[in-house]
Amino acid sequence: MAAELHVFAVPGIKEVMPGDDLGRAIGDAVLRSGRPTASGDVFVVAQKVVSKAEGALVRLADVHVSAMAQRWGEAHGKDPRIIQVVLEEARRLVRMERGIIIAETRHGFVCANAGVDASNVPPGYVTILPRDPNASAARLRDALTAILGQPVAVIVSDTFGRPWREGAVNVALGVAGLAPLADYRGRADHHGRRLQTTVIAVADELASAAELVTGKTCKTPVAVIRGAAEWHGDGSGEALVRQASTDLFR
Amino acid sequence: MAAELHVFAVPGIKEVMPGDDLGRAIGDAVLRSGRPTASGDVFVVAQKVVSKAEGALVRLADVHVSAMAQRWGEAHGKDPRIIQVVLEEARRLVRMERGIIIAETRHGFVCANAGVDASNVPPGYVTILPRDPNASAARLRDALTAILGQPVAVIVSDTFGRPWREGAVNVALGVAGLAPLADYRGRADHHGRRLQTTVIAVADELASAAELVTGKTCKTPVAVIRGAAEWHGDGSGEALVRQASTDLFR
Repeated sequence: MAAELHVFAVPGIKEVMPGDDLGRAIGDAVLRSGRPTASGDVFVVAQKVVSKAEGALVRLADVHVSAMAQRWGEAHGKDPRIIQVVLEEARRLVRMERGIIIAETRHGFVCANAGVDASNVPPGYVTILPRDPNASAARLRDALTAILGQPVAVIVSDTFGRPWREGAVNVALGVAGLAPLADYRGRADHHGRRLQTTVIAVADELASAAELVTGKTCKTPVAVIRGAAEWHGDGSGEALVRQASTDLFR
Repeated sequence: MAAELHVFAVPGIKEVMPGDDLGRAIGDAVLRSGRPTASGDVFVVAQKVVSKAEGALVRLADVHVSAMAQRWGEAHGKDPRIIQVVLEEARRLVRMERGIIIAETRHGFVCANAGVDASNVPPGYVTILPRDPNASAARLRDALTAILGQPVAVIVSDTFGRPWREGAVNVALGVAGLAPLADYRGRADHHGRRLQTTVIAVADELASAAELVTGKTCKTPVAVIRGAAEWHGDGSGEALVRQASTDLFR
């Protein structure tokens, strides 16, 4: 485990627009902050700004609404155009009850509304999830490492609800330069018994820690976790997606 | 959100035994560490040491094994006595497949093995979850506040797996002096649109952040999160347990 972590937001990132160079915007904000990047830093970047920079937006005026989306939207007081985008982003609907849609995305994420979100987006648009969040993270890592002169790791994060527990938490959609899982299996506890089953989703815990300093209004969409060199490494956020063959809750 | 968080483990806590004064043990370790407690600190304490201090242990030699526990244990290469303790700690089994038991505890937590755990426990024993994790947290808060001279908040944490995602993360079983949920509903995003649905499980995110500095071998079962005054307040970990009436995954 890390000896000590510092978690802080990167101030001064202006509103991100489609086509913006997000790596440059984050890197410049860090340089302006007067707080040099350190070895072992992990940057946690909100999905929302990644989607906006990549143009992963849908203009609602362009959406052709299906009959099901129309009925569901009318029945539950929601914009049928947004429901249609949710259906198009889903590869499978896991639950569709009480006005709530829990969907499995093309990436394998299971989340509300297939990650489609209207908050912190210009009126008339919604964001969808980045096409390949690991590639997004890799581009940001390359840009930030070049601008800041230190090898950094990057997590692209989003806020997901959970079954059985109230409240959402931040999780990692994609990672670059980071080993997302820490595997303690085979290590001994202090009675010398080998730990049997403990694999920790470090990338999700880092994403959750970052949420505590960024909040939900998106004025500060990027946080740094300092002291996390232990988890720098190679890995993909795909390792965080449980395969259907081992999932008891599909 | 917080401006900046520091997350660090409390060193020097000796192995906890039944009947130990855990608040005193943690408080003394903090005083010995030479790092004074600050206003706004949140202490995250692993369930394992809380259970041990409270005597929430079961001696396997005393367990009367039912026929189902015997069959399940034999079928899956597990100790039937531990399976029996799992059944006794459950109020409902949510899944019992492929050698895995996901159970709902008397508290309403849904987790593997109803929280019964043999790691970091003397041979021949297992721990069960504290009877009332919020009361456990409140006792620790009172003890630590008295010993350290600062009002602190306390989270009793455990490591839970999740549907759909690989790896476990730390969550809060009980809290004291802390508002476990942050409700952003009704706040405006930066387009002036009201955020509709975002309630964040801050206590779970704090527990996850703490796991990053404590690890799983239980030599450092307590972490401090400094800078978390924003979430000090009144609340119960019961707010984190989704009620069956609003849960799509029971």
